[in-house]
Amino acid sequence: MWAEMSFADQTQFTPLVVCELAEDTKEEAVEWLLSRIKEKQRNGGAEFQVSRLLPALSQDDKKENPNIFLVGASWQRLLIGAEDLGLIKEFSDGSMRTFTYANREDFKDFQGDGDGFLSMAECQLIIKHELDTLRAKQETYVPGYPKIKLYPGKSIVRRMHSKGILLQIFPLHDKEELKRLSSTWYQQIRMAFQPLDDIRRYFGESLALYFGFLEYFTLAMLPMAIIGIPYYFFDWENYDNYVVFAICNLIWTTVMLEMWKRFGACLAYSWGTLSRKKAFEEPRPGFHGVLGHNPVTGREEPVYPNAKRHLRIYLVSLPFVLLCLYVSLCVMMVYFDAEGWVLGLHDVEPTFWTGLLLFLPSIVYAVVIEIMNRLYRYAAEFLTDWENHRLESTYQNHLTLKVLVFNFLNCFASLFYIAFVMQDMPLLRQSLATLLITSQILNQFLEAFLPFWLQKRRNKRVQRNESQTALGSKLPFEKQVMLEADMSTYLGTFDDYLELFLLFGYVSLFSCVYPIAALLVVLNNVTEIYSDALKICQVFKRPFSEPAANIGVWQLAFESMSIIAVVTNCALIGMSPQVKSYFPESESQLILLVVAVEHVFLVLKFILAFVIPDIPKHIQIKLARVEFESMEALKKKKMLEAPATPIKGQ
Amino acid sequence: MWAEMSFADQTQFTPLVVCELAEDTKEEAVEWLLSRIKEKQRNGGAEFQVSRLLPALSQDDKKENPNIFLVGASWQRLLIGAEDLGLIKEFSDGSMRTFTYANREDFKDFQGDGDGFLSMAECQLIIKHELDTLRAKQETYVPGYPKIKLYPGKSIVRRMHSKGILLQIFPLHDKEELKRLSSTWYQQIRMAFQPLDDIRRYFGESLALYFGFLEYFTLAMLPMAIIGIPYYFFDWENYDNYVVFAICNLIWTTVMLEMWKRFGACLAYSWGTLSRKKAFEEPRPGFHGVLGHNPVTGREEPVYPNAKRHLRIYLVSLPFVLLCLYVSLCVMMVYFDAEGWVLGLHDVEPTFWTGLLLFLPSIVYAVVIEIMNRLYRYAAEFLTDWENHRLESTYQNHLTLKVLVFNFLNCFASLFYIAFVMQDMPLLRQSLATLLITSQILNQFLEAFLPFWLQKRRNKRVQRNESQTALGSKLPFEKQVMLEADMSTYLGTFDDYLELFLLFGYVSLFSCVYPIAALLVVLNNVTEIYSDALKICQVFKRPFSEPAANIGVWQLAFESMSIIAVVTNCALIGMSPQVKSYFPESESQLILLVVAVEHVFLVLKFILAFVIPDIPKHIQIKLARVEFESMEALKKKKMLEAPATPIKGQ
Repeated sequence: MWAEMSFADQTQFTPLVVCELAEDTKEEAVEWLLSRIKEKQRNGGAEFQVSRLLPALSQDDKKENPNIFLVGASWQRLLIGAEDLGLIKEFSDGSMRTFTYANREDFKDFQGDGDGFLSMAECQLIIKHELDTLRAKQETYVPGYPKIKLYPGKSIVRRMHSKGILLQIFPLHDKEELKRLSSTWYQQIRMAFQPLDDIRRYFGESLALYFGFLEYFTLAMLPMAIIGIPYYFFDWENYDNYVVFAICNLIWTTVMLEMWKRFGACLAYSWGTLSRKKAFEEPRPGFHGVLGHNPVTGREEPVYPNAKRHLRIYLVSLPFVLLCLYVSLCVMMVYFDAEGWVLGLHDVEPTFWTGLLLFLPSIVYAVVIEIMNRLYRYAAEFLTDWENHRLESTYQNHLTLKVLVFNFLNCFASLFYIAFVMQDMPLLRQSLATLLITSQILNQFLEAFLPFWLQKRRNKRVQRNESQTALGSKLPFEKQVMLEADMSTYLGTFDDYLELFLLFGYVSLFSCVYPIAALLVVLNNVTEIYSDALKICQVFKRPFSEPAANIGVWQLAFESMSIIAVVTNCALIGMSPQVKSYFPESESQLILLVVAVEHVFLVLKFILAFVIPDIPKHIQIKLARVEFESMEALKKKKMLEAPATPIKGQ
Repeated sequence: MWAEMSFADQTQFTPLVVCELAEDTKEEAVEWLLSRIKEKQRNGGAEFQVSRLLPALSQDDKKENPNIFLVGASWQRLLIGAEDLGLIKEFSDGSMRTFTYANREDFKDFQGDGDGFLSMAECQLIIKHELDTLRAKQETYVPGYPKIKLYPGKSIVRRMHSKGILLQIFPLHDKEELKRLSSTWYQQIRMAFQPLDDIRRYFGESLALYFGFLEYFTLAMLPMAIIGIPYYFFDWENYDNYVVFAICNLIWTTVMLEMWKRFGACLAYSWGTLSRKKAFEEPRPGFHGVLGHNPVTGREEPVYPNAKRHLRIYLVSLPFVLLCLYVSLCVMMVYFDAEGWVLGLHDVEPTFWTGLLLFLPSIVYAVVIEIMNRLYRYAAEFLTDWENHRLESTYQNHLTLKVLVFNFLNCFASLFYIAFVMQDMPLLRQSLATLLITSQILNQFLEAFLPFWLQKRRNKRVQRNESQTALGSKLPFEKQVMLEADMSTYLGTFDDYLELFLLFGYVSLFSCVYPIAALLVVLNNVTEIYSDALKICQVFKRPFSEPAANIGVWQLAFESMSIIAVVTNCALIGMSPQVKSYFPESESQLILLVVAVEHVFLVLKFILAFVIPDIPKHIQIKLARVEFESMEALKKKKMLEAPATPIKGQ
């Protein structure tokens, strides 16, 4: 289907991936890289098809980079690559099995020579994977660059990328498919679920899981939003009656997260990533160290002692993070002092100017928090880079942890302070509303308005280009590629998840004092779906599909938040005047009771998490069946291989 | 080595396993079973060697069961069985790899035709596994027993066992080896570690892990015992100073359990069970239901709806367990009332008889607890059986959970009551001492003295037999088999672990008020090692080796206990007069502080559990290397299998 994509007739293959080298790359290096990509697999090449985007430089293309290459592959090559990658596809009997080239005919949807069996995103992932694993054989350096050493087994593409010769590799959009996806996804406003399977087919599992989680989270929040409305608008709500609401909250957070695991497992199973074995992870490009031997693969690669990394983590990063947290708390205290001072000033002599002054501390504090967040983010990235983690996944985990802790404190410390130190419920309510509404407006601006504006500007530029080439409605393929190469790169789902995480925090921690919060979050999430979809389809370069079986470290983060929510809600319940009135004479009895209730809730939470299986029964059975069959097949194979000599004895 | 075992010369094979059928079994059933065991594998048999223990009944053997059979196998057959079982052995390069018959020469210690490569316990396990998986083909019933139906695929041995035709299958002891093991293990008292590798070689991984855990637990308790001595004997100890001790306790329990996981992983790795894939589990013999198809294997087998089982668990078992817990609490309250009443009586009019009466409630309570424990155990077994679990492992988990909860309450409820309701520290101390010392004396009697006495009696009988046959020093092989068949069966490590669990509870929960507890437990454990070793070597039938990678559900149980210990110790700290004196005016402030400290400890515990890897780095690397190599090998294999037709295009 997307194979029909129009492409200038100088090549006979479907371009899938674009590979951009620096403009001033020496011709010998270019030639060498291309030859390695084209070389037969048995000679250590990738056996792909490559062609230069702009073979002859026309006059008006002078300013464009000539070293942009299109990479494609034959169907057979892609199918073999799919096997290498360990892709899991639906078998003819409805189960999900690891694809093998030998059994290709037995897979569902496999027709003829296999055209259309793999989605475009899968083909692009295969090409990326094979390019990444294109390894140096005997070469000692990249031709033309004696300084860029290559040792046997080193990934050529990663080396050239980290040295700045290879600027980027990115997958091409399929305009037809994208248009179809956009129309069902976000271009009309209607009551329907997102087309998750189509999103996954076009963008891969990692992004589809994000959108799946976003949708699930929004729907799961609906009951809380509906319960919250009468609490907010009618008399129910008077700061005292929030006990029932807090208990709802507790149950909701636990059940919601457990259910998501099961729902996510269903999605991942149907996408074939649930049982996919993780391939051996290569060191991340920025990893450096003395050249040594990897104890697992035996390959030559940089080695960096674990002990040194631990020293860096525990003696530098950890103290730095703690210091930052301390500074953030100090800033918060200054803010509360300033607010108190301004309030005092206004009380003594209320004028228009002191009335205006009342807003100043909040505004300054919000700006300072935003600045601190940005600065800290840079520092965290620098530190995590400096910790020199071998794997991209470890790097991401350490970075996520650092950023999460700081963001959590920045967003929630003031609320905790108001709730438990000042014990001022009206102020808590007001602060929560302010934080929630401003952060939503800010996010909506940054994620919906800004992308929309960028999109508009881009459209204009495209139209100008079109009028230049005067080709009518369709943009020539070369222009389209250049355009995509210029788009900014999507940096992953981190910030999107972080936003959801903070919203989840506002609702689960404090919504009992501001029951309308859930509704606000639902409304925010609905627009979030549209703005995120717009962003990923129109604003950014197409990202490579990323196989994912779950939302990874975020599941842990959300679960930690829900544990904190238990503690917070119990404490809030204990502080409600309604509950306090039952224990007029003995405060310590009340505290003991609240602590007991909290412990019971925590234990229940753990039991629930233990009792509810993470993977639904029907999927467990399917997984077990495939495993059982492969074990039986192995046994049969062994029986055939068993020694022909008769067994002695008897 | 053990192949040299002397055996009457009518057979040419080494007997490994004994198979005892009921005395009145019909001859056709016996013949049929033997033929199935002897039959070639390609015809669906087990291809083992079998011979009757007592071919011609001599005069004095009339009273003995003639249907006792010895089973053995040729070396090739055993090696093929080892591959079926998925045994993991040390490869020539020092790594642990799944054994395959084809690559047998590349494994370390493989010499000649493979004699001595497998331990006797492994051979016996292989025979048991193959006998268990001997399946009915077309037979509709066991010959001679039209009522004992067989459907295709049903395990013959399990069927005959559950119907009472097959009485038992058990592995034979190797007298020479056992003597050697005993002498290094428990027959001399000396300062040395247990010969865990030899234990594992003779009894299998599950038992060796138990003894490994017992030893580790004892050694890990030593620091606490040493810290406890001065606390107990010198002035340090006056109920007030236990804060430091409680904190030591908290750290110790956490670190100890985390370290055990690593140590256990090392053991399991060196024994080849850490990375062993679990075979598909067959339904347990007692499982019944309507005949249907297993959704995983597609085989015909009983099917029992999950919903029904859940109804039984949640509507019958759970209420029953809760009722039992309630009754146990009631009994405890009666005990406290009785004790109070007796104390009052003694205070009013102290005579010799009232002095004696003082002990009565405790004694009665102890006896009642013991009776309740036994009754409850039967009830729990009955209920868990009635819940009709499909797998033996699920059955065991449900039974363990039921028994654990009840035993925990029985042992600790009174201590909790004294500590937190009565807040009577001297009484807590006294009760703890009584419980600990009496339970130890009881256990030592049941586990050391009783086995020793049994052993003595057995020796006498053996000597009498010997004098009858007048053969001198060595018992004839047939007598030895009969003797072993008469020994009682070892029912698994459950009770042994339970005892350790309760001892761990006494130390981790309350030892801060009775610091000498750890020392008592250490002393108990040292004798425990000897008595358990004696028991398993001399008193019971040799158990089949059971592969195990860890201590299973007990790790969870010990960790739950250590979490409860955090809560308890924090509460005890908060109640100490020493701490209370810092907060003379505000009790609620103290409580809040204690709760905060407790939460910090709990969080630290979880972080520690998360940060300390469960498997030591060097073993992770070894595991990763084997996986990486097998992946690479698979890739190479695929390359060879890749289509011969050249890839089109370009």
